[in-house]
Amino acid sequence: MDWCFMRIVIDAMGSDNHPEPDVVGAVEAAREFGDTLILTGDKNQINPILSQQDTTGLDIQVKHTFQAICMTDKPSEVIKSKPDSSVHVGLKLVKNGEADAFVSMGNTGAILGAAMLRAVGLGRIKGIKRPSIGVIFPIKSRPFLIDNGTNAECKPEYLLQFGIMGSLYVERMRGITNPRVGLISNGEEEGKGTELIREAGSLLAASGLNYVGNIEPKEFVFGSVDVAVCDGFTGNILMKTAEAIAKYMSEEIRTQIQAGPVTAVGGLLAKPAFAKVRKQLNPEEVGGAPLLGVDGVVIIGHGRSSAYAVKQAVRQARRMVENKVVEAIMTGLTK
Amino acid sequence: MDWCFMRIVIDAMGSDNHPEPDVVGAVEAAREFGDTLILTGDKNQINPILSQQDTTGLDIQVKHTFQAICMTDKPSEVIKSKPDSSVHVGLKLVKNGEADAFVSMGNTGAILGAAMLRAVGLGRIKGIKRPSIGVIFPIKSRPFLIDNGTNAECKPEYLLQFGIMGSLYVERMRGITNPRVGLISNGEEEGKGTELIREAGSLLAASGLNYVGNIEPKEFVFGSVDVAVCDGFTGNILMKTAEAIAKYMSEEIRTQIQAGPVTAVGGLLAKPAFAKVRKQLNPEEVGGAPLLGVDGVVIIGHGRSSAYAVKQAVRQARRMVENKVVEAIMTGLTK
Repeated sequence: MDWCFMRIVIDAMGSDNHPEPDVVGAVEAAREFGDTLILTGDKNQINPILSQQDTTGLDIQVKHTFQAICMTDKPSEVIKSKPDSSVHVGLKLVKNGEADAFVSMGNTGAILGAAMLRAVGLGRIKGIKRPSIGVIFPIKSRPFLIDNGTNAECKPEYLLQFGIMGSLYVERMRGITNPRVGLISNGEEEGKGTELIREAGSLLAASGLNYVGNIEPKEFVFGSVDVAVCDGFTGNILMKTAEAIAKYMSEEIRTQIQAGPVTAVGGLLAKPAFAKVRKQLNPEEVGGAPLLGVDGVVIIGHGRSSAYAVKQAVRQARRMVENKVVEAIMTGLTK
Repeated sequence: MDWCFMRIVIDAMGSDNHPEPDVVGAVEAAREFGDTLILTGDKNQINPILSQQDTTGLDIQVKHTFQAICMTDKPSEVIKSKPDSSVHVGLKLVKNGEADAFVSMGNTGAILGAAMLRAVGLGRIKGIKRPSIGVIFPIKSRPFLIDNGTNAECKPEYLLQFGIMGSLYVERMRGITNPRVGLISNGEEEGKGTELIREAGSLLAASGLNYVGNIEPKEFVFGSVDVAVCDGFTGNILMKTAEAIAKYMSEEIRTQIQAGPVTAVGGLLAKPAFAKVRKQLNPEEVGGAPLLGVDGVVIIGHGRSSAYAVKQAVRQARRMVENKVVEAIMTGLTK
């Protein structure tokens, strides 16, 4: 199989402003990577956007679907009731070998639910208890946080599997041998944390992973681990606190700089430095988060993604295919 | 009783660099507030520091103790085995009515444990299931986060009581009538979160508090609530993530500014603006966190506190006495 060119499905009905960012992102991805891009969704909405783009020499296909899943749809209700949604059709293309990866900026719960079920989507990898979404944190050391909110309530074995999947993901995607895996807790000392943490810690310590023990958010932020394991509730709080504080600080610094004429001039001169930090912290650079533990490559992005973020999500999807992450998890679990 | 002058106990053996910051902080507090400050701890360590200070006209007393609790002491081991520690003796002074409040920068677990037990410390307020440490978050809107790490594992009723205590604390200390109380969760929609969150949400909704429902970290950071309720594990992760990201951003901005000559000049001119943001985010301004639910005023600060933080902790302690927070919780619980 030639990995240079791939067939990537993009859910054109995914983002909050769909199909514009999704379609434009697909065009940009096709141009940059030379891949075949398959857009699933309502052709009557997709084609007008597509016709405004210069697609000369690009292979972009539209796969019309009669249904779409909204952000407000309850996952449990639409997974079985909307078999012809852009999500379902997209996942089926991957399942049937007609595409290599599925990318969506849509309803996370619905995508997760559909992807997990073998009957409508891809199905879980054998042995995986809970598929999980991990996220590359947009800070310098690029640590991988798993779970980022998919599984609010976890058992110790789930956390063990998150650690295994995260370790394999980082090994394949970043070329780090034996990635350092830590367990997010409210203190580094063994014995700290909840019962869940203590039991998961024992499992991770015996797993053969390069497990460094409990870590606090500062170790995560300042590069002490490559993979940070936590339940989805904790991961979500951590991620959203980081986003909120970064935004808060940017706004406060801007306000204080603009409060006086001298600091305002200083701020103007220092602008390129701020821009660099902003770019570094921008989650759009990462583009999306991998859904690990299902039998195929799935990348899920933010609803408010731009075309640029969609393209970056495709970049991540194709790298996951290239580096055979799904195959690595299949093999890694049975080791 | 005259609230203008109080008798505050400071654990002189508390901070990492004890007794220096603790003693100097006590002297500064005595000077600023005119209070009687009682230092508990080893007089042979306290007196040399004290003699270097100008204490003219100040009422500073030393209560010698033969034991001290270290940061590395296991709380469960020292609570009963060190009855003559600076913590135990300090709490007893409050219990016996010889002092109005106890302030320590020491071992949180040991202070909490000793304070909770009626036999050695103060005892719980009748009806309180779990005393809890809350913290005023050093951001503009000054939200109160409770629990900040004391009770890693919680039941729904604990969270309800945290909400009640937090609401009363904020009402008394900040003069906010009917403070807005939110429950930290991984999504605002009702039904989000873990079982704990859903059950605690029902209790809070029926509590008569001004309960606004589930909140995400961004609502907490951007001023949508006055009190944020969570279990101690979550509170600890939230607080430490915020600290780590704030530090990370400061360092990244500094690095990027210093990377070029023009941005470096800009950074120099903008310096006062950065200083203001730094001062705002400095936890030392708050000084310490109140231990709520025990029968007396207790403030616990960071081990790495400076003398300034110790003084600020005393400020908080005396305001809690002045505003009768303990009495408010006693009454509020039986309403």
